[in-house]
Amino acid sequence: MAESATQAIGVFDSGVGGLTVLRALQAELPGENYIYLGDTARLPYGTKSVETVVRYALQAADELVARDVKALVIACNTASAAALGALRERFAPLPVIGVIEPGAEAACAASASGRIAVIATEGTVRNGAYQQAIARLRPDARVQAVACQLFVALAEEGWLDGEVAEAAAARYLQPLFADRVAAPDTLVLGCTHYPALRGVIAATAGSAVRIVDSAETTARATRTILQADDLLQPARSPGKVRFLATDGVARFASVGGRFLGRTLDASEIELIDL
Amino acid sequence: MAESATQAIGVFDSGVGGLTVLRALQAELPGENYIYLGDTARLPYGTKSVETVVRYALQAADELVARDVKALVIACNTASAAALGALRERFAPLPVIGVIEPGAEAACAASASGRIAVIATEGTVRNGAYQQAIARLRPDARVQAVACQLFVALAEEGWLDGEVAEAAAARYLQPLFADRVAAPDTLVLGCTHYPALRGVIAATAGSAVRIVDSAETTARATRTILQADDLLQPARSPGKVRFLATDGVARFASVGGRFLGRTLDASEIELIDL
Repeated sequence: MAESATQAIGVFDSGVGGLTVLRALQAELPGENYIYLGDTARLPYGTKSVETVVRYALQAADELVARDVKALVIACNTASAAALGALRERFAPLPVIGVIEPGAEAACAASASGRIAVIATEGTVRNGAYQQAIARLRPDARVQAVACQLFVALAEEGWLDGEVAEAAAARYLQPLFADRVAAPDTLVLGCTHYPALRGVIAATAGSAVRIVDSAETTARATRTILQADDLLQPARSPGKVRFLATDGVARFASVGGRFLGRTLDASEIELIDL
Repeated sequence: MAESATQAIGVFDSGVGGLTVLRALQAELPGENYIYLGDTARLPYGTKSVETVVRYALQAADELVARDVKALVIACNTASAAALGALRERFAPLPVIGVIEPGAEAACAASASGRIAVIATEGTVRNGAYQQAIARLRPDARVQAVACQLFVALAEEGWLDGEVAEAAAARYLQPLFADRVAAPDTLVLGCTHYPALRGVIAATAGSAVRIVDSAETTARATRTILQADDLLQPARSPGKVRFLATDGVARFASVGGRFLGRTLDASEIELIDL
């Protein structure tokens, strides 16, 4: 079946972190309808193997495609790094948009020196997807990638500032930025949980460092791709959002609200099995 | 088939945290053979719903029982809290030992004042299993339970002391121990990850507070139960251990070594699918 402008955009994440991407999409494309799927039963993806993440991502995407979406946004860096190719292959010609390429493009555009730092989950760092995407766009770039696992727990706990967040940011980031001359001038938030900690991350990196949030750049990339395929919904009235979760709708609502930037009620979320 | 002393003891956890229980079992019962299963593909259990944790625990236990074990130790507080009853029912008369009851017994024995603090995952705290187990043994006890989600991430990251661990411990624990007169005199480490942070937890709670580690008490309970059923293996020579994981054997080895207290090699771990 051919895609049409009135269909929803499917957004997929391992949990609630991808709600930062949904929020950016709603700001960029407010007339669209969205179906957001958080695979909360099997999160986090960031510490799992590539094979497992690909399998999970295909199952989640199948579920969204069965609900008749016109495009898929993978709002999870780990899943984008591991499964973008597999998803594009299985669902062609459906547009499938990941967060890595838009983030890499924005980083290359933002950096003057070509020294770029990427902070992400273990899986994304190990996989090397950001490093490769940046190298394709800017072969002279020098990329340092650091896994900041604790940031996920801090964001989920709601400890977005204060002593613990500051001490963790210092421990992860100070080695990168200690030498002011050789330090990166651009820092990519390569995990959808990290924008919640943007304040403390930016303060630790220093005011000279540009922060790239791939949520915003992914939303702009989604607009460009839908426009090219003539699939944009005119923004006459605000679109609707449906939420699907594979576990724990109460926790999805309480923690998710922090990432979405508005109060979420458990009754808005449908529990599904993958 | 009837159980016999020569069979292995099956130990099950959501990941690598339960290796603290395996370590205590090996110290208490060195002649036994063990099969340890870490459900690393689906960890953490601590933030998941009871229904999901029960389903996962039954699948993991099926796998161990199929490998012919003489007893099951649930080395995961969240799974013990959610699934002990379901496991005992499905596998009777096989002995099934959880970590909650031994931990509650040890806490009641250790506490003079009856004021007991339990720190655990969200799932264990919400479920109320420790609170109920302590109340059954000691109806006058006053139990405060606090979810310390960040401790899991700290233990997995290997940040066992230093500024971040100290600041997190202070934020979670100081409200409990601020009023020295009404403060608990006993603190239960109600998650298998937490013994790795015992030093910083004990320092924050203060030297007057007794720390109960359910790994050690579970090992003693296992001895008692096996002895009663005449299933103890004489400790003539050190027993063998087999490790099974549902994902990421390399990470299981690198992070798990910290909990087991010895170097683990990825080649020792068999990848299985549940």
